[in-house]
Amino acid sequence: MPAAPHPFDEAIGLEALPDGAFAGHASPAYWNMVGPYGGITTAQLLQALLLRPERHGDPVSLTVNFAGPVAEGRLQIRTQLMRSNRSTQHWTATMVQTQDSGSDSESVVAVAMAVFGTRRPVWSHTEARPPSIAPHDALPRLSHPQAPAFTRRYDLRFERSPFEHPPADSSSTCWIADHPPRPLDYPALASACDVFFPRIFLRRGKLVPVGTVSLNVYFHADAAALAEQGATPMLGAAQCQIYEGGYFDQHGELWGRSQRLLATTHQIVWYRE
Amino acid sequence: MPAAPHPFDEAIGLEALPDGAFAGHASPAYWNMVGPYGGITTAQLLQALLLRPERHGDPVSLTVNFAGPVAEGRLQIRTQLMRSNRSTQHWTATMVQTQDSGSDSESVVAVAMAVFGTRRPVWSHTEARPPSIAPHDALPRLSHPQAPAFTRRYDLRFERSPFEHPPADSSSTCWIADHPPRPLDYPALASACDVFFPRIFLRRGKLVPVGTVSLNVYFHADAAALAEQGATPMLGAAQCQIYEGGYFDQHGELWGRSQRLLATTHQIVWYRE
Repeated sequence: MPAAPHPFDEAIGLEALPDGAFAGHASPAYWNMVGPYGGITTAQLLQALLLRPERHGDPVSLTVNFAGPVAEGRLQIRTQLMRSNRSTQHWTATMVQTQDSGSDSESVVAVAMAVFGTRRPVWSHTEARPPSIAPHDALPRLSHPQAPAFTRRYDLRFERSPFEHPPADSSSTCWIADHPPRPLDYPALASACDVFFPRIFLRRGKLVPVGTVSLNVYFHADAAALAEQGATPMLGAAQCQIYEGGYFDQHGELWGRSQRLLATTHQIVWYRE
Repeated sequence: MPAAPHPFDEAIGLEALPDGAFAGHASPAYWNMVGPYGGITTAQLLQALLLRPERHGDPVSLTVNFAGPVAEGRLQIRTQLMRSNRSTQHWTATMVQTQDSGSDSESVVAVAMAVFGTRRPVWSHTEARPPSIAPHDALPRLSHPQAPAFTRRYDLRFERSPFEHPPADSSSTCWIADHPPRPLDYPALASACDVFFPRIFLRRGKLVPVGTVSLNVYFHADAAALAEQGATPMLGAAQCQIYEGGYFDQHGELWGRSQRLLATTHQIVWYRE
């Protein structure tokens, strides 16, 4: 009997349609407060591009603008190759949903742009340094029974619960892994870039209404780095720079084995209060 | 006799065409090594969106993917409103050029996504701190006669020339202003986000072939902050996190008067060697 698919693979599963379109569904397993977790939407958009037979190279940059809430049920992703060069490709992807099954009216729920490129053996250097944290096995898995479903799809381990001890600044460090464990690939790396709790929760020590407006991922891992990482937990760090007029930013880093920086990520988030 | 327009206004000047399209030109005044300065391309794309009568709200997020070199001469920008919500709008813009005037073949040279939003008087706080630097008047304007034209459109002042004293890390701090002075607006702020020299030049102490692949700008200034800034020089800081396999990232901050963080920016840059 074949093993049941990993919830992540089920969530990003897509059916190819004509003309570069794909059919998928909003994943209940990765549900957040009022729609699916933004990381899974990001992973679906990337997966659609990875499935295009014309695609060459690895993901270098991915930006997702969240245009509106993703509803339960079916969704469609339309992909377009905007330009293909010798070593880079530029793609766009749009996620749409039919809001009323009785009509043809559809809404754009997310728009994305991606660059794929060929990595080469050139002079390389990591200027950033990984944060320090207690060993993974020494820390308990974060568990909030009332937290949204998607949090149960991750194994997150903090030295200090970000909610119980709001620090003077919003920086936090944690271990991050898919739960159950799953070998790292580009969609999973993209999804994990959204796993950092909104910094305003930490800074203010309470939950306030928020919604990510735009998420940016720079991939620094090649296939060999992903294979070396496997299902080993990643080390994540995130911090905010400014909360201003209803929008705050946050930047994050995802570190792998051997002090390898796998991805850097930025997002700007709408907030109230 | 009316004063000649500022080179920046001339560079971002656009003529409205039907169906949300605009005609412009690649600016010789902002020329870089093999095409216009990426900041001016970014400003043109933003300006097209700002000119759309349906646009409401201020820029919150702008991402530009540079798909190919912009050639001399005419260009076209096609804008599309993807979704309009109560307090946010999602737009896309594509810059195209007809590569051969004798045919209809056109190439996409840049694709962009932007979010516009309404800022509100809510709890606000700046967690980042501005870097320190000697007073603007105490520093000489950077001058390299052989540098590309666009550098002469800026007044950049460093405490330490980033090229003559390559530091152990790639961080640098400088004063940034349009030259001649020009009151700050969103296109100028977006353009200035690309003014930081490629970090690999600083880190390696030499020029190597580079090209920005994707540029991301988060705007934190409202109209009042822009007006308060006027033509006062901004304080900029930038640093790289990783150079890996032919792509490096860099992040930057643009600070205004009264320790106001006006914009944060990220880019990923292709490099060779």
